[in-house]
Amino acid sequence: MKDRRNFLGFGLATGAAVTLTYCASEPAAKSGAAAALEDEGRDQLGKVVTAYGERSTFEKTARLVPDTKTPATSSSRTPLADTYGIITPNALHFERHHAGVPKIDPAEHKLLIHGMVDRPLVFTLDDLKRLPSVSRVHFVECAGNTGGEWGLKTAPDVTRSHGLASCSEWTGVSLKLLLEEAGVQKAAQWLLAEGADACKMARSVPISKAMDDAMIAYAQNGEAIRPEQGYPLRLLLPGYEGNINVKWLRRIKVSDQPFYTKDETSKYTELLADGKAMIFTLPMDAKSVITRPSGGQKLKGPGALEITGLAWSGRGKITKVEVSTDGGATWKPAQLQDPVLTKAFTRFRLPWTWDGTEVQLVSRCWDETGYQQPTREELVAVRGMNSNYHCNVRKTWKIAADGSVTNA
Amino acid sequence: MKDRRNFLGFGLATGAAVTLTYCASEPAAKSGAAAALEDEGRDQLGKVVTAYGERSTFEKTARLVPDTKTPATSSSRTPLADTYGIITPNALHFERHHAGVPKIDPAEHKLLIHGMVDRPLVFTLDDLKRLPSVSRVHFVECAGNTGGEWGLKTAPDVTRSHGLASCSEWTGVSLKLLLEEAGVQKAAQWLLAEGADACKMARSVPISKAMDDAMIAYAQNGEAIRPEQGYPLRLLLPGYEGNINVKWLRRIKVSDQPFYTKDETSKYTELLADGKAMIFTLPMDAKSVITRPSGGQKLKGPGALEITGLAWSGRGKITKVEVSTDGGATWKPAQLQDPVLTKAFTRFRLPWTWDGTEVQLVSRCWDETGYQQPTREELVAVRGMNSNYHCNVRKTWKIAADGSVTNA
Repeated sequence: MKDRRNFLGFGLATGAAVTLTYCASEPAAKSGAAAALEDEGRDQLGKVVTAYGERSTFEKTARLVPDTKTPATSSSRTPLADTYGIITPNALHFERHHAGVPKIDPAEHKLLIHGMVDRPLVFTLDDLKRLPSVSRVHFVECAGNTGGEWGLKTAPDVTRSHGLASCSEWTGVSLKLLLEEAGVQKAAQWLLAEGADACKMARSVPISKAMDDAMIAYAQNGEAIRPEQGYPLRLLLPGYEGNINVKWLRRIKVSDQPFYTKDETSKYTELLADGKAMIFTLPMDAKSVITRPSGGQKLKGPGALEITGLAWSGRGKITKVEVSTDGGATWKPAQLQDPVLTKAFTRFRLPWTWDGTEVQLVSRCWDETGYQQPTREELVAVRGMNSNYHCNVRKTWKIAADGSVTNA
Repeated sequence: MKDRRNFLGFGLATGAAVTLTYCASEPAAKSGAAAALEDEGRDQLGKVVTAYGERSTFEKTARLVPDTKTPATSSSRTPLADTYGIITPNALHFERHHAGVPKIDPAEHKLLIHGMVDRPLVFTLDDLKRLPSVSRVHFVECAGNTGGEWGLKTAPDVTRSHGLASCSEWTGVSLKLLLEEAGVQKAAQWLLAEGADACKMARSVPISKAMDDAMIAYAQNGEAIRPEQGYPLRLLLPGYEGNINVKWLRRIKVSDQPFYTKDETSKYTELLADGKAMIFTLPMDAKSVITRPSGGQKLKGPGALEITGLAWSGRGKITKVEVSTDGGATWKPAQLQDPVLTKAFTRFRLPWTWDGTEVQLVSRCWDETGYQQPTREELVAVRGMNSNYHCNVRKTWKIAADGSVTNA
């Protein structure tokens, strides 16, 4: 017999060995332990089939909703420590609203394409759904995600540090197809994307991105986009900062110059150390974070466990993730879960045995451009201390001897 | 100017050209059409951020729930014509229950592994979540899916014909890891998987499958498995008929022979023309179906549109899908949406222009074993007319001159 305990080390730490003689055909022969297990079987008919399912009432995983006096211009965060794989459930996708979630009747909603085009066009939802479609898994991340890690006072858990990022399978129509239908004029360089919310949130989009992998999305994880993600239409610009993925999209205006809207001048710019600000810094750089174990959790005791987390890049595929259990002194390669997709969450894993001493866990990643996720010191050296946007520093978790996990 | 209308043919059929001078900075200059569009913008703050989101109240897409006197031992079907991409929303995943959905407290639930093992083991949910995990996208399909297509009276829509199949990203623990921890004995050939529902639904699983890609799943599309899919634990045997993916999993017993449970003797066997029955026909063969346009829909008029559908195989990846618009006389290759994953839904698409005459649409697929989806006549020649299980014949939709789509 090959004893796997010594190889993987999970025997004592996890499954408890029991001695029993449990046999379905001989119920009278059950030991006490087996009888207790059998009691868990239900002895009456359960719930019937339903038209639209709901999660178990035992499940309490929720977005973090801040205590604010302006909940319509606020954000909620995905609880990344309690999500699995690379798909974020629609109900837990982070939110960031500038004037709340409008209620839109999809039968009345239209998308206008105008400006520097030969044929201004108006599309209904039915029009768009009849066109050639595309489905792709992509993350969306708020430019302000992880901004709190820029300073020395870091967030106590991964919801607060990284929860303004989520990942879905989006379905919609290629924006390039629509722009070609409208006949984009040669001088066109930018377009304005405007939402149907009360503030008419709008952003300028480079025409090069619009003609690349941009999508007018009407579905998310197999069903209609959720209201808080832009129902019935959102602009999806894979890898670009969340704010420019305009929700409740109602209008695209083609131009030969950017529009300098409120949200790309008063916000979502990056003030450097010398007082100059960068504008239109749109792609999100490569980032990784360990989601389990992570801050706020408590390990039950020493032994074998899995270190897992997420990595993503707005510039392509993640090519490598490394994990350190000694605060960055030494590193081990993590396993990347297939499929590794471009501009999408990538799940990484590393089996590990905790010896019960105080340790520091940290991850770092690379994307296919060769870019490496920086330390805080490396980021500050280049970008100074004035900005909160596009922070992608490494995040360290400390496991204390009692098993409690905190921000280091 | 390059006129894309003639190339793609979408201009007249979809986006309606409008003449207007719409400009955000000059509201007074709006034409009537532009004013109507602007009215859609909301002028008050919308809904605030929430802990757990819900879909729009305008969305009515639902599983098909049958009118039955025994709703606890019944099934509901995924509305495949109104889902997108390859991920089925958890709320719309098909159901098939034999004694209803039990209510299980995950803190109390345990998984027992016993029988021909050196160390019987009991795992709590917390034990399992600490172990190395795996996430993969796989379909689950009821063996009876499409059974109605065996005869000449076919189903009128794709929900009824193919709605007992769905696809999710599942996360859990490799069953091989657990069995190796328990120390599977050399003579082991089968195992019993038993659920915690009132009927203790149980099936025999070949040890070769258990040691291959089998998973003890605790999450589905990023969150805890839904109650109707086996909360808190289900056995996932990628590509095998749905029934053997035992839900509410409570017990695995290792043996040197199969158990011949009720559901693998009275049901889920295949009666051939000569009166003999096949048992343990577990993998689902390659199948494809056009989901849009499909039965029950009505096209608004001639013109360009997309033909799209799903293909899958329990034996590996889909390698090719072809679509015919003349009832199978001629075929065109469809585009397969990346990523094409093993034992998962694969989305296929084909841009097409309907000329307004009566036509018949049908798809066929191949998997990486070289197997080709059969016609009804080919299936009947091999398997006779006595069975409803594992029917994977091609499905034909007729578009009438008025645009209505029916089963052919």
